[in-house]
Amino acid sequence: MGVVRTIDWQDHHIVAIDQTKLPGEVVFLDIFTVEDLVDAIRRLAIRGAPALGVAGALGAAMAVRDEPRNRDRDLAALRTARPTAVNLVWGVDHALATLPRGEDAVLGSALELLESDAARNHAIGDRGADWLAERLDGPVAVQTHCNAGALACVEWGTALGVVRSLHERRLLRHVYVDETRPLLQGARLTTWELAGMGVDHTLVVDSAGATVLARGLADAVVVGADRITANGDVVNKIGTYPLALAAARAGVPFLVAAPESTIDPALSAGADVEIEVRDGREVLGDLPETRTLNLAFDVTPADLVTAIVTEDRLVRPALGERPA
Amino acid sequence: MGVVRTIDWQDHHIVAIDQTKLPGEVVFLDIFTVEDLVDAIRRLAIRGAPALGVAGALGAAMAVRDEPRNRDRDLAALRTARPTAVNLVWGVDHALATLPRGEDAVLGSALELLESDAARNHAIGDRGADWLAERLDGPVAVQTHCNAGALACVEWGTALGVVRSLHERRLLRHVYVDETRPLLQGARLTTWELAGMGVDHTLVVDSAGATVLARGLADAVVVGADRITANGDVVNKIGTYPLALAAARAGVPFLVAAPESTIDPALSAGADVEIEVRDGREVLGDLPETRTLNLAFDVTPADLVTAIVTEDRLVRPALGERPA
Repeated sequence: MGVVRTIDWQDHHIVAIDQTKLPGEVVFLDIFTVEDLVDAIRRLAIRGAPALGVAGALGAAMAVRDEPRNRDRDLAALRTARPTAVNLVWGVDHALATLPRGEDAVLGSALELLESDAARNHAIGDRGADWLAERLDGPVAVQTHCNAGALACVEWGTALGVVRSLHERRLLRHVYVDETRPLLQGARLTTWELAGMGVDHTLVVDSAGATVLARGLADAVVVGADRITANGDVVNKIGTYPLALAAARAGVPFLVAAPESTIDPALSAGADVEIEVRDGREVLGDLPETRTLNLAFDVTPADLVTAIVTEDRLVRPALGERPA
Repeated sequence: MGVVRTIDWQDHHIVAIDQTKLPGEVVFLDIFTVEDLVDAIRRLAIRGAPALGVAGALGAAMAVRDEPRNRDRDLAALRTARPTAVNLVWGVDHALATLPRGEDAVLGSALELLESDAARNHAIGDRGADWLAERLDGPVAVQTHCNAGALACVEWGTALGVVRSLHERRLLRHVYVDETRPLLQGARLTTWELAGMGVDHTLVVDSAGATVLARGLADAVVVGADRITANGDVVNKIGTYPLALAAARAGVPFLVAAPESTIDPALSAGADVEIEVRDGREVLGDLPETRTLNLAFDVTPADLVTAIVTEDRLVRPALGERPA
C-alpha cells in the first residue's frame, strides 16, 4: 500500500485497482474510454466517494478529448453511473469548469484533484484523530463499516485515515470491522488494509455491530459518507444508520470523515437524496430467485451524527450545527 | 409444509429435516443416538427454540434407554449442545422429571411435547395476530428476522405463526425478511416457508432492516426468541437488537412470539445470559483467515420490547411488565 495509488493517471489513461478482485488478487485495470470507466464504476471495481470524485474528473478529461457528439453522451453516462454518490458529479463538474481554457486545463484540473487527494485525507484523518484523542482516554477501539480507506480514495483514506492517524500516534487499540453485505467491502477491503497497516482488528457480521457497541468493545464509530445534506444528514453505505442508533444508545461518539466535496448544499435533508437500488443477485448469490430490495445506502439523521470532520473543519450536527 | 413435521418420532428414533440443506433439497435425517442428535443441533441441522425443546425431550427419552454410564454423558452433552437457547435444557428437564415413573414415562412426556407444539404455536400466532389487528389498521406489512417459522418448531411457527394467522385472516400485506448472516436462515428458510404459504415477501440484507422501518415499509417487527429473562430482556438471533432500536425510532411495535418455555425466571436480565460464539469460518466463507467475533445472539433490552406473546398471555415489557 502506501505508494500504490487506488486510482492514477498514466500515459493518457486511468490505471485503477480492480476492487472486485480483492483480497484474492491485486489486479490493475487500464481504462482508455469513458465507456469502460462507467462500467468499472457501475460494477464497483472503482468505488468510494473520494475515488469517485477523482474518477469523475479524469473521466471528464477523457470525454473532452472525444468529438462533441460522443462527449455529451459520455458525460451524461458518467454523471449518472451511480446516483447517490455526489462526489462523482462534483468531480466531473469541477474539472469541466475549466473547459473554457481548453482540454488541457480540464486534464490539469483533474490531475490537481488526483494529486491533492492524499493531502486532503491526511487533514481529515488528523482532525478526526485530534477530536477522538481529546474526547477519549488512552488507546481507543474503533468500529467502522464498509471501506472508507485508501481503497476508497487515491491514498490514505477518510474513516481509515482517522484510524491511520490514531495508529501513527499509538492511540489505536483495535478496529471492529463490519463485513458489509452484500458486497463485503468490510470483509474484503478493510480487513486487507488493516492487515497491511499492522492494526489489530476483528471482523463481525453487520448485525453484530450494535452488540459490539452495547458491550463497550468499541469507543467510537468512524465511517465515511457518500453524500451529506445541508442539515447534516449523512448518506452512507447501507447499515450505517443502525450503527448510529446503537452508538447513540451506547453513548459512544459517531464520527463521519469525508472531504468537503461530499457535502451537498443543494439538498436540504437526506430524504431528498436518490438512493441507489442495485441488482438483487448481489444479495441472493446462489439462492433461488426471490424479490429483493437491495438498497445500497441509508440515511443517518443529523441528530445521531456526533461530528463530521472534513479537510477544513469539524461540524457537530447532533448539536444543531449545519454543514451548509 | 403443513403436515410435514420439522422434527418427529418414528419407529423409536428422531426424524428431522436437515435445515442446512434447505432451500436446495429437502433431506430427512434419521437420528438413532444422542451423539448424532447433539451433532445435528451443533451444526444447526435442527434449530429454532421450540424445535430444540422437543429435540431435548426426545433426546432425553433416547438417553434413558442407554446404560447409566452413557446416560449421564449423553444428557450432559445434550444440555450443553447450544448454550444460549433455554428451550433445549428445558425440554431435557421436562421429560426427565417423569423418570421416576420409568423410561416409558420419559418418552411419553417427550411425545406429549411433540404433539402439543402445533397447538401452542397456534395459540401464540392467534394472540399475536389479535394484538396487531387491534393496534394497526387494515392489512399490515411485517418485518421478521432469522426463522421463527414451522422450521423452528414442529409445525406452524411462532413469529411466522403470527404471520400465518394474519394471512389466514386476510390481514397480511407483505413480509420483509432479513437474510440473517452468517447462516442465512432468513434468506434460506423464511423465504422458503413464505413462498410455500403464498405470502408476498421481500428479502433484504440485515443492515437494511432499519431502513425498511425508517421508510415506513413495515408496520411491525415480529421475531421469535431463544431466551427471555425475568425482566423482559429478549435474547434472539444476532441482529434482533438493532431492529428493535430502529422500530423504537420509527414508532413501530416490536413483538416477540415465543412459548412459555422460552421464559427463564432464573435469570434476572439479558446480561446474565451466556451468548454462544460460533466458528469464524461461518462468517469468512472463502475469505482469508482473520480474527472474528461470531456472536450467534444479541440482547434486546426490555424497554424496546413492545410486547411478548406466548401460548398463555401477553406481556408488555416496554410498559414495565415483567414476564417472571
